[in-house]
Amino acid sequence: MGQSLDDLLRAAAADPRVIGFAGGLPCPALFPRRPLTAAFLRALQARDVPALQYAWPEGFASLRQQIAARLARRGAAVDPDEIIVTSGAQQAITIAAQLVLRRGGAIGVDPETYPSALDAFRTLHLVPTTSAQTHVLYRMPAVSNPAGATMGEAERRATLERARFVIEDDAYGDLRFAGEPQPPLLASSRARVLYVGTFSKTLGPGLRVGFLIVPPRLHTRALRRKTDDDLQTNSLSQAIVQEYLATNDFDAFVRKLRGHYRRRAERLMTALRRDLPGWSFTPPSGGFGVWVAADRRVDEAAFLRRSVAAGVSFDPGSRFLAEPGARDRPTSFRLCFSAVPEASIEEGVRRLARAWTAAGRARSARRNGRR
Amino acid sequence: MGQSLDDLLRAAAADPRVIGFAGGLPCPALFPRRPLTAAFLRALQARDVPALQYAWPEGFASLRQQIAARLARRGAAVDPDEIIVTSGAQQAITIAAQLVLRRGGAIGVDPETYPSALDAFRTLHLVPTTSAQTHVLYRMPAVSNPAGATMGEAERRATLERARFVIEDDAYGDLRFAGEPQPPLLASSRARVLYVGTFSKTLGPGLRVGFLIVPPRLHTRALRRKTDDDLQTNSLSQAIVQEYLATNDFDAFVRKLRGHYRRRAERLMTALRRDLPGWSFTPPSGGFGVWVAADRRVDEAAFLRRSVAAGVSFDPGSRFLAEPGARDRPTSFRLCFSAVPEASIEEGVRRLARAWTAAGRARSARRNGRR
Repeated sequence: MGQSLDDLLRAAAADPRVIGFAGGLPCPALFPRRPLTAAFLRALQARDVPALQYAWPEGFASLRQQIAARLARRGAAVDPDEIIVTSGAQQAITIAAQLVLRRGGAIGVDPETYPSALDAFRTLHLVPTTSAQTHVLYRMPAVSNPAGATMGEAERRATLERARFVIEDDAYGDLRFAGEPQPPLLASSRARVLYVGTFSKTLGPGLRVGFLIVPPRLHTRALRRKTDDDLQTNSLSQAIVQEYLATNDFDAFVRKLRGHYRRRAERLMTALRRDLPGWSFTPPSGGFGVWVAADRRVDEAAFLRRSVAAGVSFDPGSRFLAEPGARDRPTSFRLCFSAVPEASIEEGVRRLARAWTAAGRARSARRNGRR
Repeated sequence: MGQSLDDLLRAAAADPRVIGFAGGLPCPALFPRRPLTAAFLRALQARDVPALQYAWPEGFASLRQQIAARLARRGAAVDPDEIIVTSGAQQAITIAAQLVLRRGGAIGVDPETYPSALDAFRTLHLVPTTSAQTHVLYRMPAVSNPAGATMGEAERRATLERARFVIEDDAYGDLRFAGEPQPPLLASSRARVLYVGTFSKTLGPGLRVGFLIVPPRLHTRALRRKTDDDLQTNSLSQAIVQEYLATNDFDAFVRKLRGHYRRRAERLMTALRRDLPGWSFTPPSGGFGVWVAADRRVDEAAFLRRSVAAGVSFDPGSRFLAEPGARDRPTSFRLCFSAVPEASIEEGVRRLARAWTAAGRARSARRNGRR
């Protein structure tokens, strides 16, 4: 076919007939449009309109105070002046990595992890590895991506003991389905943890408002990097998020989101158990997707093409592999329930199951042909 | 005093009693608040709210079409798919520099140029130089910063002949005071020019919407860098700018801005000629500031402190120097007229003149004391 996986996924994303388990997008119906609009209107009324003007590189002071207050409620004591507002979590991750590693340095990651972090590490000439010998780690302790796993207490302790630095990506930290939000690793160590947070999964990724907190001795360098990269995070979104947080019960909103996403996750898992009983997964503790392992190895690209033709998409598992050579395991996929209309989840799984059966039949036919 | 120049300028910027010739900020009263609000409201009505959702790294398609159409009117033929929307011009500059230079590489710049570009080049371990032997140049042909100069035809030709690559920073290209907008260098060479544009100086820097166009063979690498840096430029501002451009006469608005800023520039120059006749400057062809050379050398930091105490601020000239060692010239300053209320320009210059006279008296006193 010649079409790259990327092109295929783009075409699928643009096609309303395709039920999209790909992409890790939040549900657009859950964006708090009305309160964000009210926040925008207030921001645009402000004298001298800071929402449209240049701002200092570290970000809006009141926004940083609100972020510090939220972290304090989770047990992490951070001075607002230690927070740098970033253009999403991605920028925070790339700045963090450059602060604690040089070209050629190894960065310890989970066997499956966030693809855009892997891409950025590789562009920076860093080497993602699952080896236990590395001293700089990239981890998502609250809710990992793609597995949706939460680190247990022993692993948290071991991580902090072992690592000289941990880049803690807490992108999904607000979206654990059950229990109170855990303290971030940051609460246990300011000297070793470079903390990455974001409003992307809750208020909307299009705002591109994330934040970075680094060990105090690295702060000046972090801020310099941020300034060199893009001067400052966009003022408009900062003003909106700041106004939103000042006048809404964000925690109540987040609790509502958790319920929504948990319900979708359960619906997806129920459908998978019924229609694809050979596939296995560990129920995620939060986040936007379920990481599934199929019951046989298949050509991932061919299966994605077949699935898209059948009207369903997913994220190919190879993108999440830290060491893409490690192919001695079943084919895996990430199925995101987050942005699919709830009522379409079952139909999406049925289409997947049909594509899977057809792929199996095609394989048998090829084998028979070979005899 | 111990206070850094940075801290001093921050304090001055926050003090409403200080008339601010520092910073290079657009005038907040000229932000098109009402049409931007209308654009926001329309964007938030859109199905699935792309303004709040993730978007592809290259940016919104309709925005890129509008950018291409504007460039076409200035003589540069660019396919919308060759445009990458960036988080302001700053990100475009840093991406461009990394595409065409390696660590330790020399980048040819004007003797005085945009400080944040110099900072970024240095962080990237590049070496800004005014030497004529360099083959990658950073230039602002339409309106330079801080000098406000426009390249003549001979210099444009020589630049393109000499350079293997030119990073063309057209940040102030829309804001030439007189004459039709010139064709960018990009119009003369797609193979050598990396073009940087922005809406910061017109619609508002807080939006952080810039753009980058690179030679086609570098496009994939540029887009990869952009993705690794921050995934995408914020969707909200893209949606607003796109809506704004689709429903407003942006060129008419830009013409209005030119008139406003030209009038302020003239007012500032008239006041300078009257109250500081020893200072010299070349009238800028556009932009936000006047680059002045004083009639004697002074301690820049001490004079800035004295000026702020007298209720006026400016940008210290040393920040703009490509080779800060080159001190064999009079003290220079950038005086930005852009964000000062028009009626305050004369008073600002009077305060500057008083501080200058006082600095001269203090120097004489010190000299006499030394005898």
